[in-house]
Amino acid sequence: MIIVLKPHATQEEIDHVLEKIESFGFTPHVSRGVERTIIGVIGDERIIQEKPLEALPGVEQVLPVLKPYKLASREFNPQGSVIEVSGVRVGERKVVVIAGPCAVESRERLLQVAKEVKAAGAHLLRGGAFKPRTSPYSFQGLGAEGLRYLLEAKQETGLPIVTELMDTREADLVLEYADLIQIGARNMQNFRLLKEVGGHRKPVMLKRGMSATIKELLLAAEYIMSEGNYHVILCERGIRTFEDSTRNTLDLSAIPLIKQLSHLPVVVDPSHGTGKWDLVSPMALAAVAAGADGVMVEVHPRPEEALSDGPQALLPDLFAKMMESLRRVAEAVGRSL
Amino acid sequence: MIIVLKPHATQEEIDHVLEKIESFGFTPHVSRGVERTIIGVIGDERIIQEKPLEALPGVEQVLPVLKPYKLASREFNPQGSVIEVSGVRVGERKVVVIAGPCAVESRERLLQVAKEVKAAGAHLLRGGAFKPRTSPYSFQGLGAEGLRYLLEAKQETGLPIVTELMDTREADLVLEYADLIQIGARNMQNFRLLKEVGGHRKPVMLKRGMSATIKELLLAAEYIMSEGNYHVILCERGIRTFEDSTRNTLDLSAIPLIKQLSHLPVVVDPSHGTGKWDLVSPMALAAVAAGADGVMVEVHPRPEEALSDGPQALLPDLFAKMMESLRRVAEAVGRSL
Amino acid sequence: MIIVLKPHATQEEIDHVLEKIESFGFTPHVSRGVERTIIGVIGDERIIQEKPLEALPGVEQVLPVLKPYKLASREFNPQGSVIEVSGVRVGERKVVVIAGPCAVESRERLLQVAKEVKAAGAHLLRGGAFKPRTSPYSFQGLGAEGLRYLLEAKQETGLPIVTELMDTREADLVLEYADLIQIGARNMQNFRLLKEVGGHRKPVMLKRGMSATIKELLLAAEYIMSEGNYHVILCERGIRTFEDSTRNTLDLSAIPLIKQLSHLPVVVDPSHGTGKWDLVSPMALAAVAAGADGVMVEVHPRPEEALSDGPQALLPDLFAKMMESLRRVAEAVGRSL
Amino acid sequence: MIIVLKPHATQEEIDHVLEKIESFGFTPHVSRGVERTIIGVIGDERIIQEKPLEALPGVEQVLPVLKPYKLASREFNPQGSVIEVSGVRVGERKVVVIAGPCAVESRERLLQVAKEVKAAGAHLLRGGAFKPRTSPYSFQGLGAEGLRYLLEAKQETGLPIVTELMDTREADLVLEYADLIQIGARNMQNFRLLKEVGGHRKPVMLKRGMSATIKELLLAAEYIMSEGNYHVILCERGIRTFEDSTRNTLDLSAIPLIKQLSHLPVVVDPSHGTGKWDLVSPMALAAVAAGADGVMVEVHPRPEEALSDGPQALLPDLFAKMMESLRRVAEAVGRSL
Repeated sequence: MIIVLKPHATQEEIDHVLEKIESFGFTPHVSRGVERTIIGVIGDERIIQEKPLEALPGVEQVLPVLKPYKLASREFNPQGSVIEVSGVRVGERKVVVIAGPCAVESRERLLQVAKEVKAAGAHLLRGGAFKPRTSPYSFQGLGAEGLRYLLEAKQETGLPIVTELMDTREADLVLEYADLIQIGARNMQNFRLLKEVGGHRKPVMLKRGMSATIKELLLAAEYIMSEGNYHVILCERGIRTFEDSTRNTLDLSAIPLIKQLSHLPVVVDPSHGTGKWDLVSPMALAAVAAGADGVMVEVHPRPEEALSDGPQALLPDLFAKMMESLRRVAEAVGRSL
Repeated sequence: MIIVLKPHATQEEIDHVLEKIESFGFTPHVSRGVERTIIGVIGDERIIQEKPLEALPGVEQVLPVLKPYKLASREFNPQGSVIEVSGVRVGERKVVVIAGPCAVESRERLLQVAKEVKAAGAHLLRGGAFKPRTSPYSFQGLGAEGLRYLLEAKQETGLPIVTELMDTREADLVLEYADLIQIGARNMQNFRLLKEVGGHRKPVMLKRGMSATIKELLLAAEYIMSEGNYHVILCERGIRTFEDSTRNTLDLSAIPLIKQLSHLPVVVDPSHGTGKWDLVSPMALAAVAAGADGVMVEVHPRPEEALSDGPQALLPDLFAKMMESLRRVAEAVGRSL
Repeated sequence: MIIVLKPHATQEEIDHVLEKIESFGFTPHVSRGVERTIIGVIGDERIIQEKPLEALPGVEQVLPVLKPYKLASREFNPQGSVIEVSGVRVGERKVVVIAGPCAVESRERLLQVAKEVKAAGAHLLRGGAFKPRTSPYSFQGLGAEGLRYLLEAKQETGLPIVTELMDTREADLVLEYADLIQIGARNMQNFRLLKEVGGHRKPVMLKRGMSATIKELLLAAEYIMSEGNYHVILCERGIRTFEDSTRNTLDLSAIPLIKQLSHLPVVVDPSHGTGKWDLVSPMALAAVAAGADGVMVEVHPRPEEALSDGPQALLPDLFAKMMESLRRVAEAVGRSL
Repeated sequence: MIIVLKPHATQEEIDHVLEKIESFGFTPHVSRGVERTIIGVIGDERIIQEKPLEALPGVEQVLPVLKPYKLASREFNPQGSVIEVSGVRVGERKVVVIAGPCAVESRERLLQVAKEVKAAGAHLLRGGAFKPRTSPYSFQGLGAEGLRYLLEAKQETGLPIVTELMDTREADLVLEYADLIQIGARNMQNFRLLKEVGGHRKPVMLKRGMSATIKELLLAAEYIMSEGNYHVILCERGIRTFEDSTRNTLDLSAIPLIKQLSHLPVVVDPSHGTGKWDLVSPMALAAVAAGADGVMVEVHPRPEEALSDGPQALLPDLFAKMMESLRRVAEAVGRSL
């Protein structure tokens, strides 16, 4: 950590900063430049990053040198992690496709979609039983009933289930059914929920918050991992920007960037990332070209009747077409589907 | 609601849209312009806003006419609401000041700060017992012990307590101690938590999420109110933008805007809004000048030793000075402190 | 255009709005709903969009129905435009690659890079003679001398030249040398510069401003086209967001979106879009997978000595490798390189 | 400047970095920590900031220690600058009010507004003769004719004139009429225009770009000042964020922040900052409470007929009322109007 002092910091102020650093058990190194004096701090920066050194008189700024996460960092597992979800391995050469409706709406419809996405080659089935909705007047999901339909769909198709957990009180219930627990974007910094899933050994798909930096996403993963659950998959799903012609701005540069910074696999959700069904397929292809380990896509047989996010759902036949293109792009970048 | 059709929408597509609208129990009105055909929909828009009409073939865009919130809207209570917090009334002529440390760190320190902010004229005492922290390695709060210290500080000073609730499982505990329950920015769309506090009758201070629009903030308030708890105070605490020289960008235009759109009182948190103690006082003055019903400020006797957010805390004597200026500005805009 | 009235708009206010509309030569249609009265306006909306109807008493909001651009819209040329740059056709099946140094730094270095990118398969040579730099103390480009080196490089390699115009006073000079005139992101709304290049018939590559919406980008193109120059290529180069681990956030969803809204070709600049050389190649591949008509990439033989933007430049051999991958991805999505 | 090396940087890479630094005439200081080696660079950082050291193999990040601007920095003139605009002093105790129509539309209307704002106490008259408009089909200003009307209004009222310069080719013309030259937000990084006005001695009001950081604003001021023109006033006018219920997000924390970082005066434009006339007055009061040296407000006698930005213009009587409140708030914070 580097501490930059104000131009006219007094000797008294400097001494006070040095004392502070030493009182925390660290060694300061003073370096006097022409315009500024700087102090280097040697020691485990993650501990000292917690100290409010910026509040000390005479301090202009504090520059961290190390990343604040450890378990989620690339250095922790340089060759990259593979997360297994009931037999489906995420993070290897093979690109994984998660598909299904936004929300579980009825038993029949879910079974129908599950069969269709299975036939088109999907590896995991998504479907929300508990739905976080912006308005209290929107459909909030079928709850436990929805989970039972998901299980039935899994039994019929063999596809493991991805579904969202929203409340610590429902952890046991959701953990009973889900093969991969989704933590939604709005809950990326619901730290109690992160700790809860960190206390189990089920794989977790952590979606990036809509205003979260990559650093914050990795710190959220660190919350889960620091509780002992290392089975974490990250999901880029678009960030909030000033552009209003798409629902979010899908940040595909997050893929190669996360690959540099972290060992965790990355999947991309172009459905939420764009909010428009006709942008989903091009962005799914782009995600794979950029190195994503998987894509998650919403599929609905009648988007105009969907109870949630209809405008961004693909029809099953468009999904099947997308799968063909996805295979070609995956192969072009040395992967398979 | 207005539905704009694509330039070359076929008659079949138009008929399909009309049928859909009628099947929902609404009446469509078709209007053919030179370049576009539009369909007006008559009926309770909040119901039909749920329908994914954008997913219908031939539809270019869907324009809502009504606001999606009702109980939080100005029209629901045109003269404005006053929320009472254990005797302190928020939303009247008198501007309310909430002050205290970011986190409760020890019994002694809390009691000291409580007495100092009381002496300077604060009306409510803030202090976090449960702390949402970006890193799992940061101080997470004293929990139940912190709540007991807050109660003691209340008994000594008479200041009602504002403290944060982070987890539905802790609702009973926090409700026992808090006079005003804070829902933090990161939990503004933790819908289960919103419903939980909506089920009680304790006043709630709902902080704006760092990437939440005003519309979304009002919808989050609607979640609480639709469960029956109308005692909601809104808090502007800065939004996330590209500017990185402040922690957040404090959006003071939210104050007069919320006053137009909603009947709920608005307080401003310039400590989180700026992240820098030397910007807190000017922004608190600005907030009151812009019409805020209150301000919430972090005060710490030794910011350099704070376990959370030291760089943004005011020293007690600076807080006392700020209170004097605040009084003058409040009077300049026809209010009092 | 739809005008939504306030809930308690008086009859007098409504009549005043109707009169206004008629005074502009348009026909209003009143529709009274349960909660709001709305007025539809029939006529050429682009004219009436100029009128400040939102300022009329009793008006709550004005909802435009039509896009504000015409010449740049997809409807103007549904099959899509192909822009020819001295023999290189942009907007066809073949993906076009623009490569070269950020700035022209010396004759020798430019000639070297030009030959290397030519050998690797680039179609156009980029290089800045006039450089827009954030700091006045940064290298500002070689000016006219740089243009002469570009011409020499073109004569040696046969690659047409892409270079930036920054000042209306230099239009004649730059137009003499450039095959494709670049309007930089910072000048996307330098309307005089847009009109200036609109008055010539040289092709123009218009880069999206760092905080410009797609709508504003298309309106900037409309500025050029409305002066008579239809030879416009759009360039996505990243937008400014809160994420600070990349220089900008490259918005690849802009590609399929622009393809829907406009007939103009789209190229992508992953060098400025990411600011990091090791993200350039994955994002170039992603751009082509998403449907881009071309990519523009910075190449420098010794990035550590570059006078501008060294950290985002590819070494020539990495560029050559990228070209191979690009070819495979292009073919996977039915195109060629 | 601090250079942080990658965890596994080789000795060869480290040596290469050291050589580079020395070849630029600077002295490196190596410091080996547990997890990272860092190199401190002693010397004038503004020169070395230009060097692309991030492109060197083995380098993880480069941390600047000094601000990149000098003439605009607070240290250059610690007591703060006062800029005189034809007798009106900006930057002293007295808060300055600039008022007038967005665009000059006709001689009569301009004279009328000029007299009204003068009567209400304004100190400077604003009015655009050259207008930057997002759409080419919008009113573009009266040009030279507008400048003549402004001169006439100045002669009648005694109010000095603030008007915008958009094109280097019109500098002579605008300089002849303007007392204070406005550089608009869209041209904040039109570096040629900055240099042009830097070459004269007329005061310049530089508006913050809609996606410009404070650092970039100060670097844009540095462009003007480095050409010799030190008469620069900065203007906060709102930045672009995700919030769409206001035209921009007015960043009032920029006021105290700029006061810390720079000696230049700051005025605030709440009309563009909010885009809504009913938010203008509260935000003007807030700006003065936060320490602004002036406010600039759009006033129009018939906003519904304005040719530009009608929805954000105040009626003359509302402006007069705002002036009364402004006076009270100015006095509350130790200033006058």
